[in-house]
Amino acid sequence: MTAPLRIGIAGLGTVGGGVVKVLTEHRDLLAQRAGRPLVLAAASALEMPAPLAPLLKGIAWHGDARVMAKSADIDVVVELIGGAEGIARQVVENALGAGKSVVTANKALIAKHGIALARTAEQKHVALAFEASVAGGIPILKALREGLAANRFQRVYGILNGTCNYILTGMEESGRDFGEVLAEAQKLGYAEADPATDVDGLDAANKLAILASVAFGCPVDLDAVHVEGIRRVSATDIAYAAELGYRIKLLAMARRTENGIERRVTPCMVKRESPVGHVMGVLNAVVAEGDFVGQTVFQGRGAGERPTASAVVADLIDIAAGRVSHPFGVPVDTLTAIPREPVERQRASYYMRLNVVDRPGVLAEVARILAGEGISIETVLQRGRSPGETVPLILTTHETDEAAMIRVRGLLGSVKAVTQDPAFIRIETL
Amino acid sequence: MTAPLRIGIAGLGTVGGGVVKVLTEHRDLLAQRAGRPLVLAAASALEMPAPLAPLLKGIAWHGDARVMAKSADIDVVVELIGGAEGIARQVVENALGAGKSVVTANKALIAKHGIALARTAEQKHVALAFEASVAGGIPILKALREGLAANRFQRVYGILNGTCNYILTGMEESGRDFGEVLAEAQKLGYAEADPATDVDGLDAANKLAILASVAFGCPVDLDAVHVEGIRRVSATDIAYAAELGYRIKLLAMARRTENGIERRVTPCMVKRESPVGHVMGVLNAVVAEGDFVGQTVFQGRGAGERPTASAVVADLIDIAAGRVSHPFGVPVDTLTAIPREPVERQRASYYMRLNVVDRPGVLAEVARILAGEGISIETVLQRGRSPGETVPLILTTHETDEAAMIRVRGLLGSVKAVTQDPAFIRIETL
Repeated sequence: MTAPLRIGIAGLGTVGGGVVKVLTEHRDLLAQRAGRPLVLAAASALEMPAPLAPLLKGIAWHGDARVMAKSADIDVVVELIGGAEGIARQVVENALGAGKSVVTANKALIAKHGIALARTAEQKHVALAFEASVAGGIPILKALREGLAANRFQRVYGILNGTCNYILTGMEESGRDFGEVLAEAQKLGYAEADPATDVDGLDAANKLAILASVAFGCPVDLDAVHVEGIRRVSATDIAYAAELGYRIKLLAMARRTENGIERRVTPCMVKRESPVGHVMGVLNAVVAEGDFVGQTVFQGRGAGERPTASAVVADLIDIAAGRVSHPFGVPVDTLTAIPREPVERQRASYYMRLNVVDRPGVLAEVARILAGEGISIETVLQRGRSPGETVPLILTTHETDEAAMIRVRGLLGSVKAVTQDPAFIRIETL
Repeated sequence: MTAPLRIGIAGLGTVGGGVVKVLTEHRDLLAQRAGRPLVLAAASALEMPAPLAPLLKGIAWHGDARVMAKSADIDVVVELIGGAEGIARQVVENALGAGKSVVTANKALIAKHGIALARTAEQKHVALAFEASVAGGIPILKALREGLAANRFQRVYGILNGTCNYILTGMEESGRDFGEVLAEAQKLGYAEADPATDVDGLDAANKLAILASVAFGCPVDLDAVHVEGIRRVSATDIAYAAELGYRIKLLAMARRTENGIERRVTPCMVKRESPVGHVMGVLNAVVAEGDFVGQTVFQGRGAGERPTASAVVADLIDIAAGRVSHPFGVPVDTLTAIPREPVERQRASYYMRLNVVDRPGVLAEVARILAGEGISIETVLQRGRSPGETVPLILTTHETDEAAMIRVRGLLGSVKAVTQDPAFIRIETL
């Protein structure tokens, strides 16, 4: 055994507590796998959580994590404070600047400042590791960077936000609407009091930006991600999706196109038998498509104390064992910007739900508008005849580009028989 | 860029050809990811495959791979000859003995001699890497050894033989019997002319023995794996499985029990909605259950030129980048033998299909035998009443141990109304 790896942990919330538990419960196992002991040497948090006190006896306690990050008594800092700016950022900058490796679960920080931080890490020959920032316990960044490194990737996509997947699953299973299921998720601790980061798609967008960078060798570019959340997904559309053989998932996808890379987080209909179609509840899944390996699927828990701690400690073991990779898979200065594929040119099939007055000629009028944009119809679903009343008209289209669908939306607005704003949902072929 | 990694390849069959293609097509990408060029410097095979000739121009050709393995002009040997003994073994021993790293896809060699070879590699401070030996393109060994290294594993299982899964899928989809579907698989190249290694379970057993070693930190022990193949699986039982909500899969499983580790390769009924229940055709899947990460699922192509080459070249990149792990995750001399759980004590539910004469009292007699062994019945399926004729009687049991089922088998032999050898299939709760 060589010298222990001395760890300083910044932040003792849910994940921090999990990390302390792994390091304590698996002390011998980790030392055996890493080739040296992993020792918790210092910690910093707003307060010491009572259940952790016995596990933290005898370690150096710092009132200011930014000071701890520069301490000569630690080799690596685990940053679990969160947020793209403020103390979290300063802790990581201080640690790297002082020549210490950093492990973080902070997706917002890496999505925003990851490239600059990676540059510092490379200059200082230390590690900046953030496996826990994407898909929790699933070792997907290591898989893309190392296990599948022989491949050129065509497409990387998945379900990256467990809260949204939990809500969509709950809506499907109960038939209830978004608001009701969200409230329940909040009560059970699966959604935050302020759910915006999750349900509006930003959390998934941060993760997708990181994934895309590692998979395609381009700088992280959060602004290039087109983001839509799940607030507008209705129980009605979930039910129609089921009838058509689909499920609605918040899909995060990055794919090569002729012109660059498409990056988007959008609610999509996916076939139930597709690789992510049966991923339910809080689970996450990531699909990587490489030119040699073909399609590989990784599934597991994307959040929570124990899975996230699993990823943090795996990074610590790599550092202890001397297995250091470039944070983004290749030297940061060889990352090559790839143009974004504009949303308007992104192609997909679409699901449309219109509320129309049930009278002769309406379907013909809608069909004419679609034909005028060169969009062909795949299926039509209409039932519950009630002449003169409003009925739902469901259509799915063949592949088209988003620009055409935006024009269709506009044109439908002027059709008198269409009584409400129509619902449009992408259909993703996986 | 530092000095190139000089590669000697032994064996230019399907996988060897794939490796040559990756190294050629992705020359720049691999150099970028590895931090130095990966150069094919030498090759040895019975003959040069014509399509590879243009890609192998100018490299050193060796008539004897064992000589190549000791050549001063290469840094690492890729062994793709196959077989646990003979030239493959000598090539690997020569290379490690000469202080060269080895990458191999040879599961039979690693299952039989992996520990001795790993000891040599560790003494010489070189790598012995065999990601390609288990589950083809899926980077599962790296995941167990590194990405999930913070966990104590409870259970590791999966579908590790694509040929068997292809045959079972074909039987389910067509309703045809084993022999017919095997013949078709052979015609299409999904099964070998001599299919025994695949369909009798040895290939999956080799892979499971390796997986269990990496997951549980014990020496590879092929003899501890209980192996049954799929020859006795009938179209009839597949149809009944479907009716009961199950599929029949050749499941390879290693799990901790109170007394040690259970290791088995057996056809099992698994719920369709279980993590491996929807893995169809030639796909492989591995499920790892760790105490912190929970359940993680990895799915992809388990064989074939390109996926296997993906795994081989990933190992080469790790070696080029200086990321060397212990072959089995921990130093080979710290691997600890764990007793095998005897087959007789392994517990499961069971499916039974009896052919019985349709007359009063038969079910009562069968039920009495089960009750006598303390086995309770979960479901009974009987239909097609034809008094005096033979009809199938389907039963599923609650959990019991295999020893009790063996006794039941014996007792049923003496029941006159049971007209044929009954079919017994484990039901695995996943």
